[in-house]
Amino acid sequence: MRLRIADLGLSVGTMRSGPRGAITDVPGVRVGHCTLDAPDRGVHTGVTAVVPAPGSLFREKLAAGVAVFNGFGKSMGLIQLQEKGTLETPIVLTGVSSAGALYDALFRRAMEEHPEICATDGSVNPVVCECNDSFLNDARQARLSREHLDSAIDSAAADFAEGAVGAGRGMSCFHLKGGIGSASRLVALSGHDFVVGALVNANFGRMEDLILSGRRVGPQLRALTEAAPDRESGSVIIVLATDAPLDSRQLARLARRSFIGIGRTGSSVGDGSGDIALAVSTSARIPHKAPPGGTIALRVLHEDHIDPFFKAAVEATEESVLNALAAAEDLRGRDGHLRLGLAGLLPGLEGV
Amino acid sequence: MRLRIADLGLSVGTMRSGPRGAITDVPGVRVGHCTLDAPDRGVHTGVTAVVPAPGSLFREKLAAGVAVFNGFGKSMGLIQLQEKGTLETPIVLTGVSSAGALYDALFRRAMEEHPEICATDGSVNPVVCECNDSFLNDARQARLSREHLDSAIDSAAADFAEGAVGAGRGMSCFHLKGGIGSASRLVALSGHDFVVGALVNANFGRMEDLILSGRRVGPQLRALTEAAPDRESGSVIIVLATDAPLDSRQLARLARRSFIGIGRTGSSVGDGSGDIALAVSTSARIPHKAPPGGTIALRVLHEDHIDPFFKAAVEATEESVLNALAAAEDLRGRDGHLRLGLAGLLPGLEGV
Amino acid sequence: MRLRIADLGLSVGTMRSGPRGAITDVPGVRVGHCTLDAPDRGVHTGVTAVVPAPGSLFREKLAAGVAVFNGFGKSMGLIQLQEKGTLETPIVLTGVSSAGALYDALFRRAMEEHPEICATDGSVNPVVCECNDSFLNDARQARLSREHLDSAIDSAAADFAEGAVGAGRGMSCFHLKGGIGSASRLVALSGHDFVVGALVNANFGRMEDLILSGRRVGPQLRALTEAAPDRESGSVIIVLATDAPLDSRQLARLARRSFIGIGRTGSSVGDGSGDIALAVSTSARIPHKAPPGGTIALRVLHEDHIDPFFKAAVEATEESVLNALAAAEDLRGRDGHLRLGLAGLLPGLEGV
Amino acid sequence: MRLRIADLGLSVGTMRSGPRGAITDVPGVRVGHCTLDAPDRGVHTGVTAVVPAPGSLFREKLAAGVAVFNGFGKSMGLIQLQEKGTLETPIVLTGVSSAGALYDALFRRAMEEHPEICATDGSVNPVVCECNDSFLNDARQARLSREHLDSAIDSAAADFAEGAVGAGRGMSCFHLKGGIGSASRLVALSGHDFVVGALVNANFGRMEDLILSGRRVGPQLRALTEAAPDRESGSVIIVLATDAPLDSRQLARLARRSFIGIGRTGSSVGDGSGDIALAVSTSARIPHKAPPGGTIALRVLHEDHIDPFFKAAVEATEESVLNALAAAEDLRGRDGHLRLGLAGLLPGLEGV
Repeated sequence: MRLRIADLGLSVGTMRSGPRGAITDVPGVRVGHCTLDAPDRGVHTGVTAVVPAPGSLFREKLAAGVAVFNGFGKSMGLIQLQEKGTLETPIVLTGVSSAGALYDALFRRAMEEHPEICATDGSVNPVVCECNDSFLNDARQARLSREHLDSAIDSAAADFAEGAVGAGRGMSCFHLKGGIGSASRLVALSGHDFVVGALVNANFGRMEDLILSGRRVGPQLRALTEAAPDRESGSVIIVLATDAPLDSRQLARLARRSFIGIGRTGSSVGDGSGDIALAVSTSARIPHKAPPGGTIALRVLHEDHIDPFFKAAVEATEESVLNALAAAEDLRGRDGHLRLGLAGLLPGLEGV
Repeated sequence: MRLRIADLGLSVGTMRSGPRGAITDVPGVRVGHCTLDAPDRGVHTGVTAVVPAPGSLFREKLAAGVAVFNGFGKSMGLIQLQEKGTLETPIVLTGVSSAGALYDALFRRAMEEHPEICATDGSVNPVVCECNDSFLNDARQARLSREHLDSAIDSAAADFAEGAVGAGRGMSCFHLKGGIGSASRLVALSGHDFVVGALVNANFGRMEDLILSGRRVGPQLRALTEAAPDRESGSVIIVLATDAPLDSRQLARLARRSFIGIGRTGSSVGDGSGDIALAVSTSARIPHKAPPGGTIALRVLHEDHIDPFFKAAVEATEESVLNALAAAEDLRGRDGHLRLGLAGLLPGLEGV
Repeated sequence: MRLRIADLGLSVGTMRSGPRGAITDVPGVRVGHCTLDAPDRGVHTGVTAVVPAPGSLFREKLAAGVAVFNGFGKSMGLIQLQEKGTLETPIVLTGVSSAGALYDALFRRAMEEHPEICATDGSVNPVVCECNDSFLNDARQARLSREHLDSAIDSAAADFAEGAVGAGRGMSCFHLKGGIGSASRLVALSGHDFVVGALVNANFGRMEDLILSGRRVGPQLRALTEAAPDRESGSVIIVLATDAPLDSRQLARLARRSFIGIGRTGSSVGDGSGDIALAVSTSARIPHKAPPGGTIALRVLHEDHIDPFFKAAVEATEESVLNALAAAEDLRGRDGHLRLGLAGLLPGLEGV
Repeated sequence: MRLRIADLGLSVGTMRSGPRGAITDVPGVRVGHCTLDAPDRGVHTGVTAVVPAPGSLFREKLAAGVAVFNGFGKSMGLIQLQEKGTLETPIVLTGVSSAGALYDALFRRAMEEHPEICATDGSVNPVVCECNDSFLNDARQARLSREHLDSAIDSAAADFAEGAVGAGRGMSCFHLKGGIGSASRLVALSGHDFVVGALVNANFGRMEDLILSGRRVGPQLRALTEAAPDRESGSVIIVLATDAPLDSRQLARLARRSFIGIGRTGSSVGDGSGDIALAVSTSARIPHKAPPGGTIALRVLHEDHIDPFFKAAVEATEESVLNALAAAEDLRGRDGHLRLGLAGLLPGLEGV
């Protein structure tokens, strides 16, 4: 059974978590994985899909925003998301060398589901976000394709695994085993609890920089593991979802806050790290086709109330990273490359 | 033989052109096309590659900048280009539904050429820029792949065709036949002529808005062709190259000016148009690996001298669009969709 | 009586103008000037205030967006406008050396009108946009103050002068006399005519680059006036207003299109030109204080209908610049510096 | 004598500090304050000037970059700094209601020092960054002027006070007394120690969120002080300086990292907080006038070596905030408003 931070005696922040402690506490959000493992060929990779709402996202889009803290990354679809403020496909996470193939697969899947795309209507904007898993995974083989995408999307559910699964399969985080983690926070407004959920694909950080719930354990960990000093590399993709009525500008602001949570885990956001956050609101659907009259009615949060959402994004992001570390088990990947799971190391640390 | 604007009695601006009147007037820049035509299946698409310098762009990068005027587009690789200020692959232009597959192909090609990528070194950032050619081309078939990419890159040369070729094969511009066009301008500085070259994949604009060298011919054209009113859609990708010593910040500023040239052809940059410009300087190579000492020496233009380069970018971009229109011949594409070439219509216009 | 472009036999574009042909065609928008002229001391400067709606803009804000094409400018208040998407003071235009004093004056005026500012509530974000009028005006004297601001705001009306008045008093445009110009366009949607109005403080461009309604008259003008070649400098501030229901993201997109209009007058947006556009919608008021429930209801344009608004912004901006040139008369400023009005020169041009 | 974090038993990070532990460890950087206190009128405000290099910054500029994490702020001069990548005046920090007057003063001072400004040459771009000190200071009186600016700049020195002085006089941080703090870190490269220095004007955060060196003391502090819950407001300005050869793009990246340091002190960057960072390199002077030949030679850091600089920016920023808190003593300001100094409270906290 996979561990979470509470199993390690850790906690993050002061806000209330949702019941699952995951992005799927936001009603309608589902997450699916497809993991591809072929240890004899050094293959340890996969796909994770965040399906933020049911039905056709192309025909009924969601408000969305993006924040790029460090653009060393090949994520696709962000430019249009930023310009139009909408998301129209699931958000697909994967390894660096499969991004193109999965973008192609997601584009084709959207075409199949929507006969109008590139026929009687315009094109679709797939969102595919990659992290470099080539330390553990033989990324040069680059073998993910449509079937893996479909498997991830079609298996999306409210309950999903964390750690070295799906897109997180080959990821490293603080030179430990990284991967997928998630968390959520509740924000009360006018008697209603809104949810801010986060999911990360954690593939960043240097071991000596790791901070666990405020405690700088990195140096001790390096001594314990006799790890050589190494550069920060990798990336982190952060997906935030909320059922609160935030518009695209507000969602971009929310997304930006997630990097504060990343920073609290010890990262200084290295040169080679693609630190990219997306945020999406499920509170309304924005129709692809203009309705009669040409305008749409929206309800948006007054920003005097936005601070708790910002704080929720910070806490949920930090906890998501720690959950990824808690869940991920040791993995020996291509060419004997090894990443240890945090859980197995913690007993060796003093005072944690 | 393909026509250029002078053949139509048109001219743009006041600055001197380079000898070819093309982006390849910048020493070392080459352009290659691969056109894929299968009229019986409605396939009219292709790839165009701008190879800005010889040798490995991954190991010896070029300073580059990007400007997004309207981000309704799926171009890939721009985020890293913006963050790092460098280009490390050829710039590949294509149709919307092949972008993912060609990104994958370009990534694989870079891996093959560089055994270190995703093995002992980091990943590579392919730049693939798409326009939606689905009016003429049955984009739902989405059939471009590695062989087409290789053909475009491997055939890159200083002399190249314009109009309905390569990535321009299926493009529409002002509801006429669009595609690839190019132009160049010379800028004298301290007794030396620097070149600013432009290449566009022109797939934007509404017929009634067309302006030819300052003359608003759109309304007359619509009357002549009995064209129904239609929305602006499509996109335009603009690639600028120069041998002047501009750094990435200056190149982003240069790129931004190209939209002034786009505007002079009549576009108001419609909602659904991905208007994206990249600029690259061939004046220096930036090594992938840090040299001893950890710093690199650069020579950059003092910005008191940058205005003529800005004007050159504007003129070269406007002329590139007009050259695309001049060269593109009538094409009847999928489902009988027809785009007329400008050259055949001009004799019907009064006073042009 | 001041001239407009129709008096010069010029026209811009194809869309319908509002009744005044000015930004004040947008209901509720008013414009006021205060001109400060002391020829014996070389003082030719002033203030122009765009008051976009009645009542307290601080307590009931307007949605607003901003676009910076070239940031060589000292405009104040844009960062918060961009972050929050709202405008909470009039937009004040002036010369470069008075910007600080007028910001201070506008801040104090807002405090006087709102006892809560910096007392029981937060601060206010004045928007002051400058252009450099120091060619004609002895800007080193920097003498505008609160009384001039008050005079401009308090005299704001639907009818207002163009040309060398208010903030436009000392401005140069294409090395001719520049200043304030305005125009408007109508956009029909579901049987209702919305207005897009523009107002510019035109202080940019090189004489040889001037394009009048598509005709490149610059070289002929330079010959006629025996003007020496000169750099582009100055700046242009563009204020757009509309009564259409655009949100801040859409308004930023609208603002960006205005630069297409600037480009059509011949500018390549020089290095030293601060080309900055703001757009504001009067369609709704956004309350400073959160309402009960914490959310606000908004109606926003579906973007399938936004293209005509973009085109309106382009046409209104181009026409505003030409109206500024049409209205501005010869002015001999400090140290004998002279700028000629366009109207007096046109008869000397062939074929215009 | 003012305290620093070591006096409180705190430390930040793992990197080496410079000898002063202040931004002035960067050779040539000086800091000056002017504090204006009139307790009977509720006036507690001031100016702090960071003078990053000797001589005329206008004639010989410094490379600079800016990062805006949350633009709820009225800082002036950032747009041009971003476009041109240079700083040409000292960086002036102050309270919100004096920003306009001090901008005016800094503009006039630059004109006096440079007879060419707005006469034979262009204008100058003053950089003035404000935080809202109106909780303690009666900001509505807005009384800072040229003399206070001059006093701050003219007294700038390598040794300077921290805490409730200069621009920090009226600032609040985590609902404690905030103000000016500084710190530095050393980065070894090829046998040479470069310095990254930080200076903050800390005026942000909610008490319950305060984290001291990883320890969340906020809730305990709130219990101790019986403080009512309150919103985050205020702002933080971060100035980074380095003698390493970073260009403007790299400096903007460095500036962005400072927010990771802000986040580690407990902030989630509230809606109403203007979190703005500037970074400047003293490694080269960029001449205002183009040299013969029109290009300039620069030496820039290869980015494979930039990560330690990023980490230095994070650590120096976090420590700067804590130094501000350590140095600031209790202040009772306008209308009896009280902010307690952290140092006096720490003995009441368990386990710190």
